[in-house]
Amino acid sequence: MAANKQELEINLLGREEQQRRLEKVYAAMRKAGLTSGIVRDNADIYYLTGRVFRGFVFVSPGLEAPLYFVRRPNHLRCDEADRLHLIKRPEEIAPVLERLGIEPGENLGLELDAIPYAEAMRLAAVFGRVPQGNLTPVMRTARAVKTDKELAMIRISGTKQSLVYERIPHVFREGMTDIEFQIEIERSLRLEGCLGQFRMAGADMELFMGNLLTGENSDTPSTYDFAMGGAGADPSLPVGADGTIIKPGVPVMVDMNGNFNGYMTDMTRMYVEGEPSEPARKAIKLSIDICAEVSAMMQPGARACDLYARALEMATAAGMEEYFMGHRYHAGFVGHGIGIEVNELPVLAPRSRDILQAGNVIAVEPKFVIPGVGAVGIENTYAVHADRPAERLTTTREEFITLD
Amino acid sequence: MAANKQELEINLLGREEQQRRLEKVYAAMRKAGLTSGIVRDNADIYYLTGRVFRGFVFVSPGLEAPLYFVRRPNHLRCDEADRLHLIKRPEEIAPVLERLGIEPGENLGLELDAIPYAEAMRLAAVFGRVPQGNLTPVMRTARAVKTDKELAMIRISGTKQSLVYERIPHVFREGMTDIEFQIEIERSLRLEGCLGQFRMAGADMELFMGNLLTGENSDTPSTYDFAMGGAGADPSLPVGADGTIIKPGVPVMVDMNGNFNGYMTDMTRMYVEGEPSEPARKAIKLSIDICAEVSAMMQPGARACDLYARALEMATAAGMEEYFMGHRYHAGFVGHGIGIEVNELPVLAPRSRDILQAGNVIAVEPKFVIPGVGAVGIENTYAVHADRPAERLTTTREEFITLD
Repeated sequence: MAANKQELEINLLGREEQQRRLEKVYAAMRKAGLTSGIVRDNADIYYLTGRVFRGFVFVSPGLEAPLYFVRRPNHLRCDEADRLHLIKRPEEIAPVLERLGIEPGENLGLELDAIPYAEAMRLAAVFGRVPQGNLTPVMRTARAVKTDKELAMIRISGTKQSLVYERIPHVFREGMTDIEFQIEIERSLRLEGCLGQFRMAGADMELFMGNLLTGENSDTPSTYDFAMGGAGADPSLPVGADGTIIKPGVPVMVDMNGNFNGYMTDMTRMYVEGEPSEPARKAIKLSIDICAEVSAMMQPGARACDLYARALEMATAAGMEEYFMGHRYHAGFVGHGIGIEVNELPVLAPRSRDILQAGNVIAVEPKFVIPGVGAVGIENTYAVHADRPAERLTTTREEFITLD
Repeated sequence: MAANKQELEINLLGREEQQRRLEKVYAAMRKAGLTSGIVRDNADIYYLTGRVFRGFVFVSPGLEAPLYFVRRPNHLRCDEADRLHLIKRPEEIAPVLERLGIEPGENLGLELDAIPYAEAMRLAAVFGRVPQGNLTPVMRTARAVKTDKELAMIRISGTKQSLVYERIPHVFREGMTDIEFQIEIERSLRLEGCLGQFRMAGADMELFMGNLLTGENSDTPSTYDFAMGGAGADPSLPVGADGTIIKPGVPVMVDMNGNFNGYMTDMTRMYVEGEPSEPARKAIKLSIDICAEVSAMMQPGARACDLYARALEMATAAGMEEYFMGHRYHAGFVGHGIGIEVNELPVLAPRSRDILQAGNVIAVEPKFVIPGVGAVGIENTYAVHADRPAERLTTTREEFITLD
């Protein structure tokens, strides 16, 4: 709690941890030919400083440490006074750099996939340029390989999310709708410390606290680029639970928010009142097997596309290809990196060129949408290690969890 | 519930209502010199069709009706088959227009303040151009004047939000933290039908379900551009409740999510366990008086800056200028338009050039942050009418509400 502090430290990571992250960023910048960059996206600012603030971080492989340009509020401080600059408008950045003798170099990068067109134009104009280098893939590449400290934070989220998922049967009541059930799970998550916020890359992605699906609603495709769909409660947010009453024997897929500290895990578990049907049992068994198989392949150097191919192969061998990752609509991936945002690198997809590295954190979600049965499948988040098998961070038991 | 429908109508508004909205958009486009526009932002797509979908709406004052380019899923339909086009990539838009003999004209607008740089460049390149006309202010201008149907939806949100706010004392328990209290209010809102989502213009704005402030945390400035601050529970989302225990006699400011159907109201009310202090009583009285005064000025033709000036004048006359709209940090506005997003036009601010129009919906939030007391003030949402006084849409009683 910082309520009473007159000033707050801008770099909450500590110099060493920040340096570790910056080295990843600088390596990716060099590879992309960027001489400097202005970071504005909240997810990236959080990555570089351990806090979100309104403003900019100026990074350059030639600089000893980044510069901070803070638009508001004025209560931040920095040990190195010449690194923190309070500004009102981005136009104030260039004169500060000039005064400090810092030259952005030939290729100044901006987060061109993340910040609005008008803002990118204004920032580039500050330096008399048009936007050129794209910092978004650079930051995504750097963030894909987690530091030990990041892993520790993701582990905490995994532990808390798993605790809540174990307790989910306690908040179920017979005759609930999917929305009512979701609301009780939201509350349990929030009381355990879930921040609620669900950061996603991509300006057209929207979701509130996660996705809970049961019955025929499971087969309603979503307009968003998620693995699963659902009609949602309203056409203004067409995804997820739609008011379907949860019925005995009908599977309920729970895929809710695992953000407890700015870093998240992604976990899906299946719940059922009474006994699941035979097809549902077979589908969850297959999903668990695919998770085990795919996570066993999670070694540095493995190709992300091979992990997808193996998952699809197992689904096909089981005669379940038609239902794999959807039925009326098929999602084009079986897993995705996760960390500050829910859709990071690497992506486990057919045409993915990502190569797994130690430090990747990957959610694997082999799911099946079977008409007359619903959505069935689990999702785990794994950390990839250099010297040992992938570590499962979402520890809740994988089989159907009974709601009675 | 649309779960079982194989196809969904793309225009949920009906032709007449859509036409009403398009006329506003076209008028603003003509004024801005735009000959056509490609709408991609979810808030604007919702405005034009009554639903969110992943894709684009092509608008042009010369066209009888807009064209829809839908990226996924493939379950949407349109009465006029030649208006709905399923595409995988934006590059497919231009050939369709060409085939239909539709010419985008000299000045094609994109939502340059909303969509990412890379996406704007790609869309413009589809037509062999660089991004030029800005559709964001056009859409904001159109959306600032609500249709009767939009007003009806906002009224529904106001009614539901007001019901929940009346019931808030029932979910309070002695010794709760601000976060625990907020979680119970979130649950009450959600059970009443609140969608949870909180749409905001501006890529750097983040908030989860609203803001609840008590004690000294009220005086912690937020990095975001909200009226009030608070340290928040985590540096990754530094705004709002921070775990402060709610104490007898200490005011609690509740400013939570009023989105029940894609349109929202904004309301703040004050709660207190036991009796509020004399300064708190005086502050809420002043806030209520300012709301009454400012809303009485809400006539078509009134200048938004005059409403702000009057609010500031009243605060100053009461000797409360130092605490008006914050203490350590002062927000630069006392009210804002609201509808699909929480920060629409007009803005009640010193340098605002907005002129009030019938159909504006405006949240007014004269708030005071007083050291040793906390944040005190109310917020109401009003609709501006041509022929009668402004209509208050947030009907919960305005005085302190007792938590015992």
